[in-house]
Amino acid sequence: MQGMLVIISGPSGSGKGTVVKRLDPSHGYALSVSVTTRAPRAGEREGVDYFFRTEDEFTRMRQHNELLEHAVYVGNYYGTPRQYVEEMIAKGKVVVLEIEVVGALQVKEKFPEAVLVFLMPPTISELARRLQCRNTEDRLTIEDRLRRAREEIALIPRYQYLVVNDEISEAVGRINAIVEAERLRPQRCADEIEFFSGN
Amino acid sequence: MQGMLVIISGPSGSGKGTVVKRLDPSHGYALSVSVTTRAPRAGEREGVDYFFRTEDEFTRMRQHNELLEHAVYVGNYYGTPRQYVEEMIAKGKVVVLEIEVVGALQVKEKFPEAVLVFLMPPTISELARRLQCRNTEDRLTIEDRLRRAREEIALIPRYQYLVVNDEISEAVGRINAIVEAERLRPQRCADEIEFFSGN
Repeated sequence: MQGMLVIISGPSGSGKGTVVKRLDPSHGYALSVSVTTRAPRAGEREGVDYFFRTEDEFTRMRQHNELLEHAVYVGNYYGTPRQYVEEMIAKGKVVVLEIEVVGALQVKEKFPEAVLVFLMPPTISELARRLQCRNTEDRLTIEDRLRRAREEIALIPRYQYLVVNDEISEAVGRINAIVEAERLRPQRCADEIEFFSGN
Repeated sequence: MQGMLVIISGPSGSGKGTVVKRLDPSHGYALSVSVTTRAPRAGEREGVDYFFRTEDEFTRMRQHNELLEHAVYVGNYYGTPRQYVEEMIAKGKVVVLEIEVVGALQVKEKFPEAVLVFLMPPTISELARRLQCRNTEDRLTIEDRLRRAREEIALIPRYQYLVVNDEISEAVGRINAIVEAERLRPQRCADEIEFFSGN
């Protein structure tokens, strides 16, 4: 069976990280591994947690179109390596990329066969509650994130699917259904069609 | 929740009828009801088994673009009424239309938001076996159907999904996943998006 790239995206506080952790690897899911220029922390393994690269190497990858998207965060570069994603897809894996909205749309442009899923909390009030519960952000940051969430919601029509994360196991179930359905796209079943035509 | 039209199509012998009968009505499925010019048989009810119409009424419906597709069979006309489909969708139903390949593509043209599912048996040999098992058709008819099946397989790229009917409960499960995923399309979630934006 052919693999695919599934992008789980949505506003900060929508629960992307929690949902992605709950996807069952026995369903063929594999997390995308990012490239970064930051130094490895204790216990972090090359090719598992990150691909660690120098700034020069990162720049070269970017120039050679080897990154599906990239961003700067606290002075370090992060990116999604095209080659890793393509290798995992060739092995039949469902590569899952958890990423914020702007990055997700960048990836879709470079990798049109990717499946874009917008994850959102049931209401803006619930989003505010979740951001407050994190307890790591001050009031101004929360208001800033809520404003950004409203802007991101305007981009939902550019996504293939919308999953409301009201209850986590239901959100995971919906993502499983999306993956099962997307595996049945004719363009992902070339082998089956050829086999059938030849019999 | 918004409904939709799901078209289950595929070669004669692919198992369309059996699969459609197994779709659980509690999932919101409703079978499409055809219009016909043939006389009702004993026990057949108007609006349940068929909408019974005269030839003049049928012609008028066709001229007024009230049919999503139509065909002649043994001297009688059959068609899919647009109004019934639209009313059921408005009620949130997943309207299921079981139809041969040419008719399915006709419907998709008139009703682009329909979801087209191509059902196929695991191999052409299996298809031949199924047609022989029916025991109602002579050798020439079977060969004719197999030739037609090969032509229809060439049309798979115009379908949204391909479901191999190797084991019936699995085929039904795949159709359920397709419906669950298609319900998460942003264009079918306008209410949720509006609700979210307003909160």
